[in-house]
Formats: sequence, structure tokens, C-alpha cells
Amino acid sequence: MSESKAIARAAREASRVLASLPTERKNGLLLALADAIDEHGQVVLEANRLDVEAAASGGLAQAKLQRLRLRESSLTQLREGIRQLARLPDPVGVVTEERTVPSGLRVRRVRVPLGVVCMIYEARPAVTIDAFALCFKAGNACILKGGSDAARSNAALAQIAREVLKRHGLPPDAIASISGLGRTELLELLQLDQDIDLVIPRGGESLIRFVCENSRIPVIQHYKGVCHIFVDASADVEKAVSVCVSAKTSAPATCNAAECVLVHSSIAGVVLPRLAAALRSAGVRILAEERAAGVLGLSPSPDDDIFGREFLDKILAIKVVDGVRAAIDHIAHYGSRHTEAILSSDRASIAAFHASIDASCVVTNASTRFNDGFQLGLGAEIGISTSKLHAYGPMGLEELTTRRFEVAGDYQVR
Amino acid sequence: MSESKAIARAAREASRVLASLPTERKNGLLLALADAIDEHGQVVLEANRLDVEAAASGGLAQAKLQRLRLRESSLTQLREGIRQLARLPDPVGVVTEERTVPSGLRVRRVRVPLGVVCMIYEARPAVTIDAFALCFKAGNACILKGGSDAARSNAALAQIAREVLKRHGLPPDAIASISGLGRTELLELLQLDQDIDLVIPRGGESLIRFVCENSRIPVIQHYKGVCHIFVDASADVEKAVSVCVSAKTSAPATCNAAECVLVHSSIAGVVLPRLAAALRSAGVRILAEERAAGVLGLSPSPDDDIFGREFLDKILAIKVVDGVRAAIDHIAHYGSRHTEAILSSDRASIAAFHASIDASCVVTNASTRFNDGFQLGLGAEIGISTSKLHAYGPMGLEELTTRRFEVAGDYQVR
Repeated sequence: MSESKAIARAAREASRVLASLPTERKNGLLLALADAIDEHGQVVLEANRLDVEAAASGGLAQAKLQRLRLRESSLTQLREGIRQLARLPDPVGVVTEERTVPSGLRVRRVRVPLGVVCMIYEARPAVTIDAFALCFKAGNACILKGGSDAARSNAALAQIAREVLKRHGLPPDAIASISGLGRTELLELLQLDQDIDLVIPRGGESLIRFVCENSRIPVIQHYKGVCHIFVDASADVEKAVSVCVSAKTSAPATCNAAECVLVHSSIAGVVLPRLAAALRSAGVRILAEERAAGVLGLSPSPDDDIFGREFLDKILAIKVVDGVRAAIDHIAHYGSRHTEAILSSDRASIAAFHASIDASCVVTNASTRFNDGFQLGLGAEIGISTSKLHAYGPMGLEELTTRRFEVAGDYQVR
Repeated sequence: MSESKAIARAAREASRVLASLPTERKNGLLLALADAIDEHGQVVLEANRLDVEAAASGGLAQAKLQRLRLRESSLTQLREGIRQLARLPDPVGVVTEERTVPSGLRVRRVRVPLGVVCMIYEARPAVTIDAFALCFKAGNACILKGGSDAARSNAALAQIAREVLKRHGLPPDAIASISGLGRTELLELLQLDQDIDLVIPRGGESLIRFVCENSRIPVIQHYKGVCHIFVDASADVEKAVSVCVSAKTSAPATCNAAECVLVHSSIAGVVLPRLAAALRSAGVRILAEERAAGVLGLSPSPDDDIFGREFLDKILAIKVVDGVRAAIDHIAHYGSRHTEAILSSDRASIAAFHASIDASCVVTNASTRFNDGFQLGLGAEIGISTSKLHAYGPMGLEELTTRRFEVAGDYQVR
């Protein structure tokens, strides 16, 4: 048996044990895991130090080194996250529908785990434990292919989880960390639709493309976020400016940051100068299309350079549009089905925006940055799906389960 | 633009109109469609006659010819189905969750259409209208790649739908029937993940494999059903025999028919002779593994020939097992995650079966044939999914939608 096949098969076996585990045992394990991370923190930080050194001497970019580095505070956050997760309700076993049908059968629709989830991500070691904890609470085994730059950190974290599983009489193969897996073996893994139920790629566009093009297993994409804010004619100007600035600057490298502001032409003369001034003092570079550039006295940027782009930086595209219809058309063309916002007090505009925008989260009068599992009340998050199938938007515990039918009768036939 | 691309693009444009269509307009169109099928029935039957003639002279097998043939009664059924669909509640716009989160945002989770659904199926012309009607009611445009043997029938049916759409001021591209599309163009279509949201292949295993291996668009498989019935030691013998016989014979060619009966060794001596007699008088051929063959005085069949197979015919595999655990192991190995049943009055056995069986529908004390959208109370059905993502089990109207987040605030930022 190949290495990939052996890993997937072991995860499938483990998932069978996890599927029917009582909630208390799952929560008990999570709390023990939090304690174990506390206890073995230095081992993890030392492994991480070696990863960071190797990556730095290998010339990894600063932004990526930052993501790779674990601090005491990262471990504290991780532990708190796990303890919070232990307090969340267990999605498994929840009955979402129940009825007696004309044949007399009692029909229930019940949440069950997906089975085996494979996560493919880049060099953010904390994801190793985050993803395991979420998958485990939802009754799933997980195969974690992290970035190879974080191989030592990921292995140290996974080892802690495996030890805790063993101590609790549970299969350690409920987590497999395979950061070192090569491209050929990954390709092989992506064919194993008998033993893996779901693949979640998180990271750059090329990684996600690669997975989508090569996987025979269902994939939930966590693609780029090209999020727009449309400032309607009826928007409160001061508040609109502050929402736009915050949506760009509070965390520019996240997928729910705003990348483009569309301003209604009838208030462009009022909004744009204030918006530009506020953005500049926040250190944001403005890329304006022709009409917006005209109002602002800037030189215009070509459409292709500024629209449909996820800058992941303090850069914002600005465009003047002639109303909600034009805003909708722009978003239909350049949006990424992630998060789209309208700032308006006009019911008709808001209704038109909602009726025609195709995105996992449609926001009225707030920042795009609220599209997040914690902010929307899911209690946890494994990423934000821009696929429409199964999960659209933030994926929490519930989205790591599926629903099956359970039917009970008295020897009925048809 | 290639033919495939043009078809997909037109469907995407149509889907934008359908997404926000009021329920009354959708129902109005469905009722008009039912009337139009009434009115133009002869045109459809004539087109079908030509398809059947061509297929028969081309040597198509009898069973397939039967599926291809439309009768007056098929059209009546089709019309009644559409009228029934018009009476079902509209899934679009339904709010499934609603809360105010600590930031003060009002968060709603709302059902929206998937967008564009592509169905790939074999020569059953009625599916053309069934699939369109279901997709349309759920606000989706559809691209229908039916079997080429049914090309004339499918085209005639789709033409009726397109005319009715036009008369109602709706885009006729809400339905595209492309039975004539070649393999190369189909491959091209399966890459268009920008314009098509979901592919549903229904048909033989090789068709489904082909689609899964070549699609970049998410696929919901409607795979084979290898359904088992486990007759536990505590089962009511007479009733168990009648459930097994009915589950095999009431419609042997359907995916929810039983293919294998597992009998607890402690009652095999009582159950098997009665079951064999009843099956024989119903014209069912029995394939028994060694122990069952021993009890029945038959010559045993090799495991590989009889287990894990979807016979689609009056053939049933029979095996003696030493208890619920052995039944579970057999099903874990040979099952297809479709429908699995236990006949038992023992709570512990039933609980063990439920805890360990991985299938879209787990049945206690009834026939496997109840795994069906109508029987389970969904009101409609586009097929039975054996994929765990998005829909597991029968897919009704709800499963042709997704849920997005709609957030409303008062200019909050984070």
C-alpha cells in the first residue's frame, strides 16, 4: 500500500470510532489537549524556532515569516480557542427535521460527521491544532497537509494531539500531519475518494486551483475575497467614510477586507475628497478609475490593473458608478462571491442590491470584515467558503457535518 | 466563443433573472407548462416515436427502449408532477437562522438558488421536464445533457418549456437541452466553473466516474445503490421475509432495491428456508455464500461474484452473519452509502447499527425502498445523492438551493 493510501485508510478507520463518540468524551479530550499544549509549549516553540531559522535562511518573505512564527501568545490563543470549542454545542446527533409520513414511517434527518476531512494550507502552524480541534468536535478524522516550511512546528503540535488521543483510549490517527508530503503523493491523496470525504484548500489562488483541478474528492474552496462596498446616494457620508477606511485598514491581508469602493455619482463630489483624505492619513494607496480620478485630481489607473484584484495590502480601488444597477453589474463582473456591502438608507436600493448580488455574505450598512464565523455567531470557523455547495460563507462546526435520514417503521413495504 | 461556453454563459444570464423571481410568477409558469404539455403532447409523442424507432433499429436493448418510450400516461404523470410542484412551498428566501450578535448586527441565513445546474442523464426523456421544473422552482437555470438516443424527445419537451418561458416574459435560456453534445464539448462544459455551479450525473457507474474524474465543477453523485437488509435474531420472521421479498421485487431496477440480505446465524435455520421459498415463488434467483448455501442445500457462490454488486434485476445475495457487528463490517466493506436496513426488536442491536452504519438513509424495520424523496416527505426529488457534501440522500427543492448570510447594521466596523 502506498504512503498516501495508508494514511487515508488509517484516518478512515479512526473516523469510524469518532463518529459515535459521546459529547463528553470529545469535550474531555479537547480540554486535555489545551492542557497538553500548555505543558509542552516549549517543545513547540523550539520546533518553530528551527522552522523560522531555516525559512529565513532560505529567503522566505517577511510577511510569510510572520505567519510562520509562533509566540507564547499564539499558544495562549490556541488553548483558549480549544477551551471555547469544548463549550460549544455538539452538532452530531442533532435532529433537524422530524415527521411521520403517510406510510406510517417516522422520518428524522440527523446530523452525522462527514468522516475524513483533508485540509491543505500554507505555513500557519496554528491551523494544525485549530483544524484538528474543529474536525474532532464534529466527529471527523483529519489529514493535515500544511506548508513544508512549517513541517517541524506542525509535527510537534500533531504529536501532542496524538499523545492525548492515545491517553484517552482514542485512535491517534484521528489526526495525520503530513507537511512533508511531496507533490506526487499529494496528487495520489487527492484521488482517494473512498477514504476521504472532503478537501479544504486554504491559501493562495494557485494552490486552490491545483487542488480543484486535481481532486476527485469534493472540494470546498476558500478562494480569494474581492470585496466591494457600494456607497449609495443616501449613505451617511461621515459614517460611510469611516466604514470604508476601516474595512480596508483593520486587517488588509484578510479575505474580508474591502478591495474596491464604488461611489454613487450623485454624492461622489462630497464623499470622494473626504474618503481620499481619510485613506491617505491611514496610509492607504488609492487607485482610481477615470471618473473618480477626475474628482480627486489623480491620474487614472487602467481598469484591468485595479478591478477584481485582491491586494492583501493597504491599496484600495475607487470607482464612480451611476447607481445601484451599475454597482451590481460591476460586482457581477469583478466580485468573488465572498462579501459585498451596500451603505444606504434607501429601501429600494438595498432591496435591489440583495436581489441581484451573488455572494456568501451580503452586508447592509456595516464593514465587509464582519464576514467571519465568530462575528456572525457560528462560535468557531475553519475558513470562509466561496463555493456554493454544502457551505457558503464561514464554515463552523455544523458545516463539518452532513445530514442523513433515519427511518423507523413497523415492517412497512412499498 | 465555443458552443459550450455560449450555452453556459446564457444559462448564467438567465439564472440572474430567475434568482429573484416572486413565487407566484414561478408557480404561474409551472402551471402554464403543464397545460402546454397537454396541448402539445402529440408533437412530443411523435418525436419520441422517431427516437424509439431509430434506437430499436440501432439495436438498443429492450430495457433501455422501455425507458426511452413515452406514453400518453407518461405525459399525464409529468403534468401532474409539475402541478404538484407548483403547490409546494418555495425554498428561496426562507430564513433558516436569525440572531443579533454582540456587535449589534442582525444576522440572517437565507436560502438562495444555486444558480446554474447541469444534469447529465441517460435516455429517460421525462427527466428533461422533471429536472427543469425542479430547478426552476428553486430559482435555478438548468443545462440538460440527456442521452443522445432521446435527442428528439428531449428537444421537443425543452422547446415547449422555452416557448412558455418566452410567453411569460422570462429568459428561454433558463433551460438548455443539449442531448446532441459530443464528448469533447461535454468535457469543455465540465470545466466552466465560473458559469455552472453544480453537476448532477445520473445513470450508469461509468457515466458517473467519467463526470467525477473530469469535472472542475462540484459534482453531486447519484451512484449505485448496493442496499443491504440485516435480519437480526430478534426480527419477526414472517414480516422480515415479506420485507426482504418486497425490497427485492417491487422495483428491482431501482437504486433503493435490496441487493443482499444478511441473516443472523441464530435464526438462519428458521428464516432462510422461508425466505428462499418466498423469493423463488417471486421469481428471484438466489446467490448464497457458503454458510447460507449450506442451510439451503445450494451450491455456494464466490464472495466476489455476489457482494457489493448492484444487480438491477431479480437476483439477491444471501449471507449468514454472527451478529450485528459482523453485519456492520460486511456493510462497511461492500455498502455504497445509499440505504441500509436492520430488522430487529433489540434496542442494543438497532443502536449499534445506527452508530456504525455510514449511509444516506438508515432504516429500522422497513423496506430499503422507502429511501425516496416522495416517500420521505420532501415533496419532490431530483435523485438520490450518495455524496456526503451538500445533499446526502434524496435531493428535493431545498437541496437545489444554498444558504447565504445577510447582515444588516448601523455602520458598524471592527
